[in-house]
Amino acid sequence: MQGTVLYGTGDIRFEDVPEPKITKPTDAIIRLEATCVCGSDLWSYRGIGPVSQPTPMGHEYCGIVEEVGNAVKTVKPGQFVIGSFFASDNTCPHCNFGYQSSCQEREFVGGAQAPLLRVPLADGTLVPTPEVPAKEMIPNLLATSDVLGTGWFAADAAKVKPGMTVVVVGDGAVGLLAVLSARQMGTERIIAMSRHKKRQKLALEFGATEIVTERGDEGVARVKDLTKGVGADAVLECVGTQESMMQAIRSTRPGGYVSYVGVPHDIELKGEDLFFAHVHLHGGPAPVRRFLPKLIDLVWGERIHPGKVFDLSLPLDQVAEGYRAMDERRAIKAILQP
Amino acid sequence: MQGTVLYGTGDIRFEDVPEPKITKPTDAIIRLEATCVCGSDLWSYRGIGPVSQPTPMGHEYCGIVEEVGNAVKTVKPGQFVIGSFFASDNTCPHCNFGYQSSCQEREFVGGAQAPLLRVPLADGTLVPTPEVPAKEMIPNLLATSDVLGTGWFAADAAKVKPGMTVVVVGDGAVGLLAVLSARQMGTERIIAMSRHKKRQKLALEFGATEIVTERGDEGVARVKDLTKGVGADAVLECVGTQESMMQAIRSTRPGGYVSYVGVPHDIELKGEDLFFAHVHLHGGPAPVRRFLPKLIDLVWGERIHPGKVFDLSLPLDQVAEGYRAMDERRAIKAILQP
Repeated sequence: MQGTVLYGTGDIRFEDVPEPKITKPTDAIIRLEATCVCGSDLWSYRGIGPVSQPTPMGHEYCGIVEEVGNAVKTVKPGQFVIGSFFASDNTCPHCNFGYQSSCQEREFVGGAQAPLLRVPLADGTLVPTPEVPAKEMIPNLLATSDVLGTGWFAADAAKVKPGMTVVVVGDGAVGLLAVLSARQMGTERIIAMSRHKKRQKLALEFGATEIVTERGDEGVARVKDLTKGVGADAVLECVGTQESMMQAIRSTRPGGYVSYVGVPHDIELKGEDLFFAHVHLHGGPAPVRRFLPKLIDLVWGERIHPGKVFDLSLPLDQVAEGYRAMDERRAIKAILQP
Repeated sequence: MQGTVLYGTGDIRFEDVPEPKITKPTDAIIRLEATCVCGSDLWSYRGIGPVSQPTPMGHEYCGIVEEVGNAVKTVKPGQFVIGSFFASDNTCPHCNFGYQSSCQEREFVGGAQAPLLRVPLADGTLVPTPEVPAKEMIPNLLATSDVLGTGWFAADAAKVKPGMTVVVVGDGAVGLLAVLSARQMGTERIIAMSRHKKRQKLALEFGATEIVTERGDEGVARVKDLTKGVGADAVLECVGTQESMMQAIRSTRPGGYVSYVGVPHDIELKGEDLFFAHVHLHGGPAPVRRFLPKLIDLVWGERIHPGKVFDLSLPLDQVAEGYRAMDERRAIKAILQP
């Protein structure tokens, strides 16, 4: 088969790769209905955290189970399933506490920008839909695999609830879906930080009530203005840079909540800044598995449409154009059809 | 009158200082029944964060109200009162959220190692006891002013509750009282990190169930051993150094809670370490005012005896010996009688 491999900065290739096989009895092989390019793929594509060897890309996936290992008990061939970027056994203590992305047996799932994918720990990782979905539902289901699950964790980790003023830093797919998630959790007031027309529009559609275009110190000052000098109750940091993190911390009121879900790049937090900011801080790799049943349910009932973040649809063999379009911010997120 | 002034590293003097006066209508003057030396006083005494000019010392206090400004409504001369190191109006939004130590009008209360003290924002800051206490209750009440309030915040910020395994890093007065606080919040299992016999004994008396003497990597490994490889549910960091903070973070299970209440010194947290640790982080200057009514109540009912941390009692004019004894770790905490 052909799959997506990153060779170095800007060098993404769609080329012959070995077909995945069951290598452990707990594995499943799935045939992808759709996959996509992640904001985090762009870091290595841009040479920030470069790859040391040709690396199969893609970690967002949904599709039909093709084959399972002989220890797999609940997942069956023919089912339509969704999983997350970290495979998890869903039985260890960390999983039981809802932190499946820190599972004691976790394995990163790579190589999903391809027609077939091996998913380890299939029983703990994959969640089936009630039945095989209609084509038009696929983008919404695919979104639950990472970007919605991650945006949802951002809102969950910041304890979002009705009555709060919530700020979302970052207008990528995760930031936009953090807006949607905060709205689902009942917040009436959501301030989205964005200076990009198309993304602003989607943020408003997902439930943002205000848009702030300023960044850094000016962004902080604007949030303070909008909250009578108090600061936001919760700020969801969906970028992963020093500037965005400090902007999030400084926009939050003492006792408020900062969540962070973007893989951090060269962030260093000074103890004194944190100490006197007086905020709650929580984040990390989103335990998407914890939220998948609920998110699939919301999508299945057509109560949310997170697939709207896909504004570019390409056949899988044009994956390189998907990377370029996202890198140049021409597209929010590219969906790929094998 | 005579009061305590720090001139430079190791140079603490008890000398003539001006008597405090009412300078704002919201002030009160109190005559101290007792005061003490704080672990945080030692940082500047040791030349870490040195003073730039002679600085009146002391921020832990309780005593009888001598005089109040004409805008003070609830605090009356003759009352026995306790306050915290940050004066707060207790009415601003931050105070209403329980973060009085980030009060929009906050003022640091300094110069308490003296017979008389000016306390700003008296109505919002001072909490009276039901009546003037017996002499033997004074140390317990004085402890609520800072070290117990701070230890209590450590436990509160780490969401301590029954069923958790709690670790306390730091065996100073705050760490020991964090043990007491965690016990009061119903935790059955408290691991105190200490290599000092007298402090171990007090930790056990306050409710610790295990003592770990190892530090750093070995301390982390020991906690992991004691928790079947999982990590602690909550770790209360009561020191404020890079080593203690990282030890706390690394001893905590994914999804667990780290609180930090020691003024941080040259701490830098790497974004990646935090991200993959997956912990909740909360701390800062303890909002002691939030807890004072409850803590006074617990002391008044003789349900707790936090004054046991005072293992050295001196007349106020021997304050310099109090600093020396604590600096050399001969004493846990020195109480001073004016």
